[in-house]
Amino acid sequence: MSTERYFEDFSSGEIITLGPRIVEAGEIVEFASEFDPQPFHLDEEAGRKSLLGGLAASGWHTAALTMRMIYDAFLAQTASMGSPGITSVSWRRPVLAGDTLSGVAEVLETRRSSSRPQMGVVTFRITLANQKGETVMIQENPIFIGSREVPA
Amino acid sequence: MSTERYFEDFSSGEIITLGPRIVEAGEIVEFASEFDPQPFHLDEEAGRKSLLGGLAASGWHTAALTMRMIYDAFLAQTASMGSPGITSVSWRRPVLAGDTLSGVAEVLETRRSSSRPQMGVVTFRITLANQKGETVMIQENPIFIGSREVPA
Repeated sequence: MSTERYFEDFSSGEIITLGPRIVEAGEIVEFASEFDPQPFHLDEEAGRKSLLGGLAASGWHTAALTMRMIYDAFLAQTASMGSPGITSVSWRRPVLAGDTLSGVAEVLETRRSSSRPQMGVVTFRITLANQKGETVMIQENPIFIGSREVPA
Repeated sequence: MSTERYFEDFSSGEIITLGPRIVEAGEIVEFASEFDPQPFHLDEEAGRKSLLGGLAASGWHTAALTMRMIYDAFLAQTASMGSPGITSVSWRRPVLAGDTLSGVAEVLETRRSSSRPQMGVVTFRITLANQKGETVMIQENPIFIGSREVPA
């Protein structure tokens, strides 16, 4: 992929759409088997008996799927240099087998790095919803993005 | 797995050890290919040229591996009911291919749910280090844990 977007190309208030992405039962079980094998992430009946109400994706799976939606929407063409962490993640509702996720990434803030002027920090708020329009996750996180031009 | 630990069995200040867990190059590439295909997570040379300094695990991969270490250390035997989200995640240093991760989960706070007295919220701070003793990730997150006895 060629780089088309640099730090200077983001400004607060910009909205980027994410998804849609169907979440299948099989991938929920596969991810959970490896990383989060709690019963409600592995088995429909155990899920129905839990607070989650059905076979539900691990919240870490939802976060990883969100990362992929961000990549596909814009990060693949962006001079991304990684991230220092996550400000917060709120899992509002379960992501159930068969759900279709879509969402938006909103630019909250852009700030040039003082220690590394060849890059800036762009902070995003990601809001993810299911096919009923119900919010399933809200996440805030900063991404380091390379600068088109380094200021003198 | 049988349930051995309930909400009442956690108290603030308790320290639970996590890991060790070796992180192999192949699994870094596999996770990244699916969820976070940025070049520094897929290729050793691209990693060396990046801020990360080598083939480095996606931060979401590190978080997912941490979830598995938490499961293996105590959650499998705990009356876990899920989690409302993540308070914060800080990726302090890259997790590089071949690193061995270990860490501690410290109980920061326990609080019985007022809306659902059959459970409580236990908040953990997870500190993860590599084989050099360098901190690679700090994470805080609450987990819903079922109560042994529901108060009258």
